[in-house]
Amino acid sequence: MTAAATRSEHDLLGDRDIPADAYWGVHTLRATENFPITGTPISAYPHLIDALAAVKEAAALANEELGLLSPEKAAAIVAACREIRAGKLHDQFVVDVIQGGAGTSTNMNANEVVANRALELLGHAKGQYEHLHPNEDVNLGQSTNDVYPTAVKVATVFAVRGLLKAMAVLQDSFGRKAVEFRDVLKMGRTQLQDAVPMTLGQEFSAYAVMLDEDRSRLAEAVELIHEINLGATAIGTGLNAPAGYAESARRHLSEITGLPLVTAANLVEATQDCGAFVQMSGVLKRIAVKLSKSCNDLRLLSSGPRAGLGEINLPPVQAGSSIMPGKVNPVIPEVVNQVAFEVIGNDVTITMAAEAGQLQLNAFEPIILHSLSESITHLRAACLTLAERCVDGITANTEALRASVENSIGLVTALNPHIGYSAATDIAKEALVTGRGVAELVLEKGLLPAEQLAALLRPEVVAGSGAPVA
Amino acid sequence: MTAAATRSEHDLLGDRDIPADAYWGVHTLRATENFPITGTPISAYPHLIDALAAVKEAAALANEELGLLSPEKAAAIVAACREIRAGKLHDQFVVDVIQGGAGTSTNMNANEVVANRALELLGHAKGQYEHLHPNEDVNLGQSTNDVYPTAVKVATVFAVRGLLKAMAVLQDSFGRKAVEFRDVLKMGRTQLQDAVPMTLGQEFSAYAVMLDEDRSRLAEAVELIHEINLGATAIGTGLNAPAGYAESARRHLSEITGLPLVTAANLVEATQDCGAFVQMSGVLKRIAVKLSKSCNDLRLLSSGPRAGLGEINLPPVQAGSSIMPGKVNPVIPEVVNQVAFEVIGNDVTITMAAEAGQLQLNAFEPIILHSLSESITHLRAACLTLAERCVDGITANTEALRASVENSIGLVTALNPHIGYSAATDIAKEALVTGRGVAELVLEKGLLPAEQLAALLRPEVVAGSGAPVA
Amino acid sequence: MTAAATRSEHDLLGDRDIPADAYWGVHTLRATENFPITGTPISAYPHLIDALAAVKEAAALANEELGLLSPEKAAAIVAACREIRAGKLHDQFVVDVIQGGAGTSTNMNANEVVANRALELLGHAKGQYEHLHPNEDVNLGQSTNDVYPTAVKVATVFAVRGLLKAMAVLQDSFGRKAVEFRDVLKMGRTQLQDAVPMTLGQEFSAYAVMLDEDRSRLAEAVELIHEINLGATAIGTGLNAPAGYAESARRHLSEITGLPLVTAANLVEATQDCGAFVQMSGVLKRIAVKLSKSCNDLRLLSSGPRAGLGEINLPPVQAGSSIMPGKVNPVIPEVVNQVAFEVIGNDVTITMAAEAGQLQLNAFEPIILHSLSESITHLRAACLTLAERCVDGITANTEALRASVENSIGLVTALNPHIGYSAATDIAKEALVTGRGVAELVLEKGLLPAEQLAALLRPEVVAGSGAPVA
Amino acid sequence: MTAAATRSEHDLLGDRDIPADAYWGVHTLRATENFPITGTPISAYPHLIDALAAVKEAAALANEELGLLSPEKAAAIVAACREIRAGKLHDQFVVDVIQGGAGTSTNMNANEVVANRALELLGHAKGQYEHLHPNEDVNLGQSTNDVYPTAVKVATVFAVRGLLKAMAVLQDSFGRKAVEFRDVLKMGRTQLQDAVPMTLGQEFSAYAVMLDEDRSRLAEAVELIHEINLGATAIGTGLNAPAGYAESARRHLSEITGLPLVTAANLVEATQDCGAFVQMSGVLKRIAVKLSKSCNDLRLLSSGPRAGLGEINLPPVQAGSSIMPGKVNPVIPEVVNQVAFEVIGNDVTITMAAEAGQLQLNAFEPIILHSLSESITHLRAACLTLAERCVDGITANTEALRASVENSIGLVTALNPHIGYSAATDIAKEALVTGRGVAELVLEKGLLPAEQLAALLRPEVVAGSGAPVA
Repeated sequence: MTAAATRSEHDLLGDRDIPADAYWGVHTLRATENFPITGTPISAYPHLIDALAAVKEAAALANEELGLLSPEKAAAIVAACREIRAGKLHDQFVVDVIQGGAGTSTNMNANEVVANRALELLGHAKGQYEHLHPNEDVNLGQSTNDVYPTAVKVATVFAVRGLLKAMAVLQDSFGRKAVEFRDVLKMGRTQLQDAVPMTLGQEFSAYAVMLDEDRSRLAEAVELIHEINLGATAIGTGLNAPAGYAESARRHLSEITGLPLVTAANLVEATQDCGAFVQMSGVLKRIAVKLSKSCNDLRLLSSGPRAGLGEINLPPVQAGSSIMPGKVNPVIPEVVNQVAFEVIGNDVTITMAAEAGQLQLNAFEPIILHSLSESITHLRAACLTLAERCVDGITANTEALRASVENSIGLVTALNPHIGYSAATDIAKEALVTGRGVAELVLEKGLLPAEQLAALLRPEVVAGSGAPVA
Repeated sequence: MTAAATRSEHDLLGDRDIPADAYWGVHTLRATENFPITGTPISAYPHLIDALAAVKEAAALANEELGLLSPEKAAAIVAACREIRAGKLHDQFVVDVIQGGAGTSTNMNANEVVANRALELLGHAKGQYEHLHPNEDVNLGQSTNDVYPTAVKVATVFAVRGLLKAMAVLQDSFGRKAVEFRDVLKMGRTQLQDAVPMTLGQEFSAYAVMLDEDRSRLAEAVELIHEINLGATAIGTGLNAPAGYAESARRHLSEITGLPLVTAANLVEATQDCGAFVQMSGVLKRIAVKLSKSCNDLRLLSSGPRAGLGEINLPPVQAGSSIMPGKVNPVIPEVVNQVAFEVIGNDVTITMAAEAGQLQLNAFEPIILHSLSESITHLRAACLTLAERCVDGITANTEALRASVENSIGLVTALNPHIGYSAATDIAKEALVTGRGVAELVLEKGLLPAEQLAALLRPEVVAGSGAPVA
Repeated sequence: MTAAATRSEHDLLGDRDIPADAYWGVHTLRATENFPITGTPISAYPHLIDALAAVKEAAALANEELGLLSPEKAAAIVAACREIRAGKLHDQFVVDVIQGGAGTSTNMNANEVVANRALELLGHAKGQYEHLHPNEDVNLGQSTNDVYPTAVKVATVFAVRGLLKAMAVLQDSFGRKAVEFRDVLKMGRTQLQDAVPMTLGQEFSAYAVMLDEDRSRLAEAVELIHEINLGATAIGTGLNAPAGYAESARRHLSEITGLPLVTAANLVEATQDCGAFVQMSGVLKRIAVKLSKSCNDLRLLSSGPRAGLGEINLPPVQAGSSIMPGKVNPVIPEVVNQVAFEVIGNDVTITMAAEAGQLQLNAFEPIILHSLSESITHLRAACLTLAERCVDGITANTEALRASVENSIGLVTALNPHIGYSAATDIAKEALVTGRGVAELVLEKGLLPAEQLAALLRPEVVAGSGAPVA
Repeated sequence: MTAAATRSEHDLLGDRDIPADAYWGVHTLRATENFPITGTPISAYPHLIDALAAVKEAAALANEELGLLSPEKAAAIVAACREIRAGKLHDQFVVDVIQGGAGTSTNMNANEVVANRALELLGHAKGQYEHLHPNEDVNLGQSTNDVYPTAVKVATVFAVRGLLKAMAVLQDSFGRKAVEFRDVLKMGRTQLQDAVPMTLGQEFSAYAVMLDEDRSRLAEAVELIHEINLGATAIGTGLNAPAGYAESARRHLSEITGLPLVTAANLVEATQDCGAFVQMSGVLKRIAVKLSKSCNDLRLLSSGPRAGLGEINLPPVQAGSSIMPGKVNPVIPEVVNQVAFEVIGNDVTITMAAEAGQLQLNAFEPIILHSLSESITHLRAACLTLAERCVDGITANTEALRASVENSIGLVTALNPHIGYSAATDIAKEALVTGRGVAELVLEKGLLPAEQLAALLRPEVVAGSGAPVA
């Protein structure tokens, strides 16, 4: 690299050469050297980059409003931030997502990129910080300790919106199947043992209802994420942030993002607390648990084709085996299970990181960001692929399902009130010994006329009052 | 045991002798033999026993109301249940808390104890089930699959109320210290490094605010637990429960318990879903995380007496060492940390149990009950002992704390706006090199008059606007 | 309580009345007041009590040998310890198992009980510590920080021996079934989809092999637990323990317990490290994972009786339902699953406790003891009940299993080399379209003579070379 | 894309256009569409790609040896695999790392890339599978169910080797500091309270010893990973793999990789079992726990500079704060803590995935690969950055540390045997009341001559016998 291809920057450790075309500077360089952990730069988290730019923009507008930043500088910073939020310069956010320093390196990366782009917009060269400084201007009135958690929260809100939409897609997919299968009679099972009859529509309706409830819980949890600590500066006392700054910055950030953000009542507490992230992760884990349970069911119900339950058919989406011709596997539910296991593990990671906070700060928010972001985006992808590549194409083996009811011992429980407990018990015993079906025996013995038996097995009767189709 | 000391009971596996004075019967006997796991009987969970009795009472009243149970039988069942809820017969609940069968053994233990006590009240001997039957009368219109989760929910609500009160006690304790220490100046720290000044009152206020927020989250989570599936019977279709039963039973159970219970809209979903327990456990974990963080802080701030931070003193509650005279250890925060670790582990257990549900039922609710109950009651005990045996008696080393501020380099950050960045940096450097205090140097160099420096270090100025004392 | 019914004892916090008949003293009293957490006293951990007594006995013998303790005192302490190890006085170990103070209260409880019993044996009254002192004599040369972890390790070794035996019982049970079912042909499944034929004996053999491997891993992990830090005293520097003490105490403890204990090479490290417990818990988790997987399989294979896989029958051990006549559930595998979930949660608890150690000590060993002990003893109970109440009584539905092979499409994979890929594919397609069996079609079309087909389906051929019956 | 730019490939779902220059084919295409989860292709796991190529090469050589594959085809396959192992074509491994299907898509991606490159080497165009087929030739005698776990194991062994080296680097770094600080006297602490004196060398020696033990445990765990199931084919019965194949393939794979691989004795068990991965993850978790504890200590010991323990200084590696001039934070230990939290979370993910295996296969190995690989490579990076950017540059504040010992009350414990218990207690009390140092008081009162006191505080005396410098 020739001398012309670099510029020199200075920090408390000395001078370093920076590639001339880099918008990041010396602090970013140090961070990339200090944290060669995952190889995944923060640019892989576009919601975070957008949120950082939004925070920097809001702070500049607040500083201008309070007379602390000249209109020229403010305008340049705002313009740079808007470029970033429009998707530009993301490749300049190069620090590793897992980093020490409570997010300082992420904040400094943002300060440097914004400053250097703003310098260019003002007609200066990158690095001429005497005209506009990453710390003194872009970071004015801020601290990593309020900027980083605020940006993580804004990013999380946007990511969760994507997840909520994907969950709605999946809920609709299950809901349509619930309607489609409303007349498909089948045996319900408890503890994997035959229990009493139900409809396949009820089974799918339960999955839809689960998602509906989970969406409500997620929407509640994301509300808590709207509380920010911008204006807290280092530890929540607001040192060096002038009166009015916190409120002005919050107002601008709400306008920029369109989010109804509120400033925490107690900024000291808000600056050290990760409770809202733990709660969010707990709800994501709840979603994961139930998605995984639903996928376990889908895999079980579609087991076979000959030596399994064979109740439903998942649409084939790829060949299942190179050595077993025609084998098709439930690959889509399987990948959803794995995402669920990942989310559950991430919850432990987030829990430990939150617990490890000390005194006025939690230094471990970068791993919280990483794990939370991964959980949200992978769950979103899992919901969409499950809806589109699996649930939408599920078909039912209606005849076999009905036969399993008529053949089942569990049917006597339903016939109990109509043929009497004693007769019911006798039928059950005979069915067990002979291997014959309960319906067949009841008809043969004339215990019920065929029409009445048929009536008792009408789907709407079987479904009972307990579970309306969603 | 002589023949006279037993009675014989029968189930599908054959006849068994039951101790004549036992209120439990053959199903309970089988369960005690099948599940010799923990040695802890369900009687160790009094909220659960009370809740089971309340459910049985509510069901009897509903059955009577619907004409399914004679007033005599109903009255006897109700009377037996009330005795149990008054604390009697708890020692008859002998099945192991961790059991297979989705809680069937717990439900049958309740059916048998209620039936045998009701038989006595009706003037019959225990075991004369032809007069009043555990299944056909006490369990009428019910199934383990709706009774057990409903009882677990009622028990959980009562347990959580105890926890909420204990959290309020601890919050008040922290809150009183926040007021007491409102004028105690100290250095705030980020990443364990000296940051900027604050008050000790603010530090304790943060702990109080955390608890206040956590109480809100817990109150929200317990709301979800008020949704029950009584009337669902085996799988949620309400098979064999007559029209009106679910609503009547819910109404009676609400009256008995004083809880605003609601019946789930979709009983098939409600019968297989453990989402509300996962959510509850997630919130308990959140509480544990923050309690643990607070206790970590208390142990750190009280470290010493000579070679530690030595900011506060925890009241001595027992001798700390047999070989180091006079050593006193932070034993109360330490026990709270351990409860927190237990709660976090329990959350993983509950998560796995919830994920393992299959099709129409989750067979693993007994371990959920066990883990959830343990988390709630241990957290309650931890909050109370922390408040009463630790926080209430904490004192501050006020002078040393103030000296640490005056001596700190971090003070320059606060003086920055008053003496200028350049002078501030020079002072910081000189302080670092000479080991002298910033306040001392500022006064020596005449950069600020003593009165102004004192004014800048007044607690109300240092505290800033960000964190009002709670 | 009258004055005569108490004695007065003194500690650094002042005087307290102790019940005259209590062998424990003032330090124990304080601890019971400070830690009202679980209600479970350490007496519920008999291996721990025995191990504490063994350590106290070994220390007394070492101290006598080194001339630090008179033969009279040593003899009295040894006699008291032997009584405890014979099962006496366990009810005097009353401190809560979850306690702050790194186990100091457990150690002091032991010191006091041993001292007071030794005093009695010497003809003195309880509490007359001027003749023999809990700290100065019983605890001589020791510290909680070496006594407690050493006792926990000895207790763990004994508990693990019980688990190893129980695992061997279960392994034998599976092994016997592997032999019994060696000729039972069935379809193997991958991803719950029909794959290729195997024998039921191979399936059960796999469970036996898993247990065999897990026993090896557990035996390796328990080896690490034989390394103790007795002689380390407070922080590992051996302060106040004379030369030769550590070696003498270790030798006596090895003789008393019959265990090949070794003293850690670096006592500073050994005193702060919980790595061996984390490793042990990790292996217990591994065992839990595989037991749970095996039980999931047993529940799946026995699903039915009509609408399930119905391959095997678990012995009925209790009625499964009050409202569904004749229903029998897989309650034994279900309880094992729950123990597995508990063990996995305990592993997280132990992990967090181990991570929370600071500087020269881990103060959180009491929760490690509690969780580890629970995991080991519950796993032991689970293995035994699974062997005796489930696996031993399992039967196979041999005819249905064989039919499922002949009926399966997967059979073509096995016939491939014998009828050619092209014919195999045609047969598979026809079987899929018509619903007929592959064996039937192959014979109908004359692709193989009946004898050759039968030969290919002989169990020893199907089993292949890969999996010898254990 | 013009027609010329694609080729058409066919699978059971129909025809698809493949980019003409792609080495992957239709199965890979389907997988990329089915699993749009993480965006991270398997090419990000170079050890896995190399291992897959090694397995394919070994299989080809075995097939050639057994006369199943022509020398020409075998040579082409081998050449293609060697190119891949030389680092070429990695960008053709495009399926998402988290995928359903038990790794089938990864295996098929490998089969297709190898086949197409081999075709080119034989002078054919990509896609002309009639000359050399991904399934029939490259995958000959194999199944995903033996290829994938075998490749994951080989990849894990190589990754672990890198970790073992990094741990050795860190151990050496701590070891050098142990020697450097062998004469630095300091107060040891238990429960964060001053205990008794020790040397700083002992403190660092403990970290080195911990790593040494962990390396031993990791080396043991990786031994278990050398057991493979190649030759098991679909479920372990070896169906369609000829006699001698398993042994030949293992021998070739051992030669290619240089690893002493062994074939599992029971292939049915080996094919469904994930125990070795659970064990490996458990050991990684153990390493994480102790690394995290060590980093917690480093952060605590370096707290300050004025209001902390201030015992050691970590080398500054980047500016710590934009608003607090001169603040330097312990960013390297902080990033290591976060990696530890991630590893602990990954262990839960791996545990759940392992537990979820069913019958003859675990379909969730892809998430196990992902999590295990992440844990290993991140731990490796963490060890290296901790050694090179932190531990190597640590300095001690020797004078302050010595003063803390002389000033400490805990010193009386050490002087106890020399001045008598009574005098020691008096000194301790006076020190507490007056705030003066124990050494000072002992000298003032003439209890010990200065020379003797100095001798008792010599580092080699203080260090005791318990903890030799490593």
